[in-house]
Amino acid sequence: MVRPTGSKLKVAVLAATGLVGQRYVSMLSNHPFFRVAEVTGQSSVGKKYGLATAGTNLPMGQDAKSLTVKPTSAYSLDNVDVVFSPLPTEVAMPLEPELVRAGFNIITDASPHRMDRDVPLMVPEVNPGHLELLDRQRKVREWNGLLVATPNCTAAGLAVVLKPLHDSLRLKRVIVSTLQAVSGAGYPGVPSLDILDNVIPYVKDEEEKVETEPLKILGEVGVDRIFPAKFEIGAMVHRVATTDGHLESLYVETEERFEPERVSKILAGFRGEPQKLKLPTAPAEPILVTNLEGRPQPKLDRYAGSVPGMSVVVGRIRKGLDSKSGRLTLLSHNTIRGAAGSTILTAELMYRKGLLG
Amino acid sequence: MVRPTGSKLKVAVLAATGLVGQRYVSMLSNHPFFRVAEVTGQSSVGKKYGLATAGTNLPMGQDAKSLTVKPTSAYSLDNVDVVFSPLPTEVAMPLEPELVRAGFNIITDASPHRMDRDVPLMVPEVNPGHLELLDRQRKVREWNGLLVATPNCTAAGLAVVLKPLHDSLRLKRVIVSTLQAVSGAGYPGVPSLDILDNVIPYVKDEEEKVETEPLKILGEVGVDRIFPAKFEIGAMVHRVATTDGHLESLYVETEERFEPERVSKILAGFRGEPQKLKLPTAPAEPILVTNLEGRPQPKLDRYAGSVPGMSVVVGRIRKGLDSKSGRLTLLSHNTIRGAAGSTILTAELMYRKGLLG
Amino acid sequence: MVRPTGSKLKVAVLAATGLVGQRYVSMLSNHPFFRVAEVTGQSSVGKKYGLATAGTNLPMGQDAKSLTVKPTSAYSLDNVDVVFSPLPTEVAMPLEPELVRAGFNIITDASPHRMDRDVPLMVPEVNPGHLELLDRQRKVREWNGLLVATPNCTAAGLAVVLKPLHDSLRLKRVIVSTLQAVSGAGYPGVPSLDILDNVIPYVKDEEEKVETEPLKILGEVGVDRIFPAKFEIGAMVHRVATTDGHLESLYVETEERFEPERVSKILAGFRGEPQKLKLPTAPAEPILVTNLEGRPQPKLDRYAGSVPGMSVVVGRIRKGLDSKSGRLTLLSHNTIRGAAGSTILTAELMYRKGLLG
Amino acid sequence: MVRPTGSKLKVAVLAATGLVGQRYVSMLSNHPFFRVAEVTGQSSVGKKYGLATAGTNLPMGQDAKSLTVKPTSAYSLDNVDVVFSPLPTEVAMPLEPELVRAGFNIITDASPHRMDRDVPLMVPEVNPGHLELLDRQRKVREWNGLLVATPNCTAAGLAVVLKPLHDSLRLKRVIVSTLQAVSGAGYPGVPSLDILDNVIPYVKDEEEKVETEPLKILGEVGVDRIFPAKFEIGAMVHRVATTDGHLESLYVETEERFEPERVSKILAGFRGEPQKLKLPTAPAEPILVTNLEGRPQPKLDRYAGSVPGMSVVVGRIRKGLDSKSGRLTLLSHNTIRGAAGSTILTAELMYRKGLLG
Repeated sequence: MVRPTGSKLKVAVLAATGLVGQRYVSMLSNHPFFRVAEVTGQSSVGKKYGLATAGTNLPMGQDAKSLTVKPTSAYSLDNVDVVFSPLPTEVAMPLEPELVRAGFNIITDASPHRMDRDVPLMVPEVNPGHLELLDRQRKVREWNGLLVATPNCTAAGLAVVLKPLHDSLRLKRVIVSTLQAVSGAGYPGVPSLDILDNVIPYVKDEEEKVETEPLKILGEVGVDRIFPAKFEIGAMVHRVATTDGHLESLYVETEERFEPERVSKILAGFRGEPQKLKLPTAPAEPILVTNLEGRPQPKLDRYAGSVPGMSVVVGRIRKGLDSKSGRLTLLSHNTIRGAAGSTILTAELMYRKGLLG
Repeated sequence: MVRPTGSKLKVAVLAATGLVGQRYVSMLSNHPFFRVAEVTGQSSVGKKYGLATAGTNLPMGQDAKSLTVKPTSAYSLDNVDVVFSPLPTEVAMPLEPELVRAGFNIITDASPHRMDRDVPLMVPEVNPGHLELLDRQRKVREWNGLLVATPNCTAAGLAVVLKPLHDSLRLKRVIVSTLQAVSGAGYPGVPSLDILDNVIPYVKDEEEKVETEPLKILGEVGVDRIFPAKFEIGAMVHRVATTDGHLESLYVETEERFEPERVSKILAGFRGEPQKLKLPTAPAEPILVTNLEGRPQPKLDRYAGSVPGMSVVVGRIRKGLDSKSGRLTLLSHNTIRGAAGSTILTAELMYRKGLLG
Repeated sequence: MVRPTGSKLKVAVLAATGLVGQRYVSMLSNHPFFRVAEVTGQSSVGKKYGLATAGTNLPMGQDAKSLTVKPTSAYSLDNVDVVFSPLPTEVAMPLEPELVRAGFNIITDASPHRMDRDVPLMVPEVNPGHLELLDRQRKVREWNGLLVATPNCTAAGLAVVLKPLHDSLRLKRVIVSTLQAVSGAGYPGVPSLDILDNVIPYVKDEEEKVETEPLKILGEVGVDRIFPAKFEIGAMVHRVATTDGHLESLYVETEERFEPERVSKILAGFRGEPQKLKLPTAPAEPILVTNLEGRPQPKLDRYAGSVPGMSVVVGRIRKGLDSKSGRLTLLSHNTIRGAAGSTILTAELMYRKGLLG
Repeated sequence: MVRPTGSKLKVAVLAATGLVGQRYVSMLSNHPFFRVAEVTGQSSVGKKYGLATAGTNLPMGQDAKSLTVKPTSAYSLDNVDVVFSPLPTEVAMPLEPELVRAGFNIITDASPHRMDRDVPLMVPEVNPGHLELLDRQRKVREWNGLLVATPNCTAAGLAVVLKPLHDSLRLKRVIVSTLQAVSGAGYPGVPSLDILDNVIPYVKDEEEKVETEPLKILGEVGVDRIFPAKFEIGAMVHRVATTDGHLESLYVETEERFEPERVSKILAGFRGEPQKLKLPTAPAEPILVTNLEGRPQPKLDRYAGSVPGMSVVVGRIRKGLDSKSGRLTLLSHNTIRGAAGSTILTAELMYRKGLLG
């Protein structure tokens, strides 16, 4: 694919009229590397994208608004450089491999292929090296395109925090209790009758994802697979009546002493390759540490940081029950850091590494 | 104090116009052992109780409604057999000892004296024997009355569940993450601006209470003190936008194997002395176990059981990360099982044991 | 149909696993006139009703729990004396006439046939005489069964209040602004993302219903139709983040002087035929008037009165902009007074009049 | 007062640590005409403003953060050009006249002096000419400073919409039903227990303000007073569980025919003097008209427009019960258009007219 220097890569956003799809299109307005060239949907096929999403209060670029919504299928997509796929599980499962075979480069938010042996599961600050798996993927699968995955919305923010913790203190066990926003279930998602004046201590399949995905993300890349990090995660998940922002409280057991002040500095000082490369969607600080009482909070902190929604905010860093355990609470925006934002950041990293286009 | 056989004990409810005070008066309507003889308050002193609480939707006995609200002080109380005290901490701290010295029998929801060496901290299903401490209390303190305490609203429900778990599996460590209702902070309590579309991962002084009180409650009574149970509790507390019902998710480490089906039976089969004595406020089942997906939930389960609000509902009993650990979620009504209901149940137990009146 | 004296009429509840369907079955537990003999559903056909509704916190009779859920069709129903139909509009439209032709007596909450010329639209306290239309219905339609309708959930409570107002002051114009609970949209109904921290100033087709149905209900019965009451209603509807209880604020213009104290007495004194007949589901007072500041409120007042959810609570009765106008706020439980409760009350009235069975 | 050309006016923000106070300081960051030179407060006197408001998620200028919070009194303020006063009523009543006598120019959000004969009650798009009253004020009162008022938060947005309606259709009567956000009551304001799963059909003193203030704002300026506009407003107010944004549904009776399409154009085309002068806080369009179903909505529309929170969004423009009546719903941000934003816009207008500094 030959492209004039300086021109932007063409992006297709699948399910672009959905909750996360709209985030993508909004975050890609005026993006320096990418431009939205295709949008797909279901009930609004044939409409202009601006009309199909007229009710949104997210800012949308004029170019994207004038695109016509296409059906979500391999046949309907033109030649694009990368495809962002926030498809529902049951649609993604068969369609994504088909698209990759057809030559598309896909970065997916969907869960079916996240734990596949040769699919990198990316949080760009944490495991940029996992993209090496793509060599293997290309060879073994004989795909024309490639498939990269973004983690579960709860796991993504968690992995950002676990990375510097594990590097410095060697994690043994993490017990995480989540309080997740309703937007995590998409739209229409959680019925209001289920959540007004209520909490649901369950999200289907979520605990398994939260317990396994971060271990892959923090794992070591081998020739043909990722060797998962060697600690354990136990999850207890809850849905609460917040619109955006997943809050997670962690109890961690570590090999090294957990000293809150030191941990605070380690987290605040964490930087990854996206920060070094100054990627457009990379927040200046992947982790913001707050000492304010009773923080982080979804309403106040979900858009904190230099790139709104991309920084994970951590507070209440305190001791555990012994010297080698500790506690903290983190907040991460589930449709940005937990979905569209992380995917775009991965795409930026891949672009810089010459893996797209 | 000589009382005609069959007559009811006279009760004073302090802070009776408050959120928990109203629960007391409502639960004591037509009580077989007790009748509300005195109510105290602050801003409505001099008004009829029915008028002072005209806005409530709790059913109130006609007798109580016609009482005049008195100020909260030793001087204003007549000769009553027992005093229920849901006073704010800073009022309870000096006033309660003063009242006990003046000869009143107090059962308090307030925190200042809960951990005092000779003050029984009661959950009647769990530690009825702790009332023995009162002998010592009477001797050492040279009080004319007595002081008994009810635990923190989060600790009360937790202790009910930990008791059969500890008895059968020997607990080593409990990590508990709470999602607490706003009524736990009283009225006016949590400002709506702080909790709409939000979660607060903090409640002042709560974690310390949740970590220590259950250990005293599950402890062994000695001559002059309670020897606390020998396991550890680590707490991570959160306030959420629910009106009533504290939800708590537990990760437990045990000496014995944690087998979910067996644990389920143990919890469901738990009975205490209040059940044997068929005390009026004792629920038939202190713990209700549910197998329904995503339960318990505050909105659906807070009034479950034979005495609404007195049963703790437990669900999601499942394995932990190894064979000697497990997880579960419990729900307990914070102003009933966590305050007024537990206190009344304690009073019923004391009445039956001849410790009142 | 011959029935042994004293035996109860057999009732079928359609869509019995839905939100309103569950209300019906719960309210019919231990009903003196009726017993639930059939329940229909969609996704849980073939299951026991108790299992299909295991998650509910409404009390359900043991008999009903052991029924098997049947599909909703004319073929699946046995010989029952009356059918309660809270079916969705699009299902009710074709099915209900079919069922009536097949000989069933249907009282429906569904909207399609409410404004049909010969279908009584019943609020038993307001228009018991409208049942006379059934003679005409039987003759003209040549139906074996009969069809009676219950009004829209907002219109039902409104009609209860407008009746005594119109009788005493002669209404000219009513401007009503509603704040409706999410349960009014059924389950799953309103997505939580649409209503958390939000208000929707629109409910599809609702304003038209609120503007026309009460006029029919307060109308005069003629030989072959109802002549609608001769005043006007203008509606502005809103969906808000409450679970149950529709609140409606009215500005009324009247022929007579609107004197708040007098209006208060008129409303509080209103009684209808159900009260005279002491029907089981008739509240002692159809309208409860409150003088408490800032009342009625959904959370506090939705279950007020002798039959929970059947009384309409009215407050803030005050003058309008001139002597012949006034304002007030009413609250009525949308799935009880606005649906299941009103329908059952209508059935009770019909039973007493010998129109069923 | 001589000021170097181009220098900014010095502003004092009273009660600057409060909910509205923080809005002021945030909106004045990098303001081209004004700089915050003084901030006052109550509990945080002596602290740096940045520290006193550390928990906010509003962006604050670095200069403001480094100011020291002073007590709210005439003695503590240095020589500033204008004072913004979002003080509570009971503090404002005595203090504001004292400050004006001491020579300060005050624009107040507080209610006590809004209806004073010689105090302009300003919505800059609506009644810029009312500032003429200040001549009279200065003469009669013999004040050194001046006092200008901003309307009630509900009345401000309402006045913006009523102005073009009245100019074009001559209003006779307006019935307005409000659904007001909790931030309208300040902080801590509405207890969460009062508003979760609830609606309160009452806000103290609000209806009187909504019924009188817009008439003054739309009135004609005379020599020594404002002659109020000659139509009537009837209000029915409600508090709902939204954080920000007051929604108001209007039923209007007019002298001219109410034709929805024409009204839509009139409202969308409305411009005032702030737009002509291109004042910094003037939105390009004071009224944004939406045709989207079920809009405006607080969550989606409160920050609409070119200056977030300053445009009033109007939707559901439709006919009333006759040709000379109509209905519509408006949404206006209660702490921006309804408080800080309107006041700053008034200050900008006064600055341009040479009335400040």
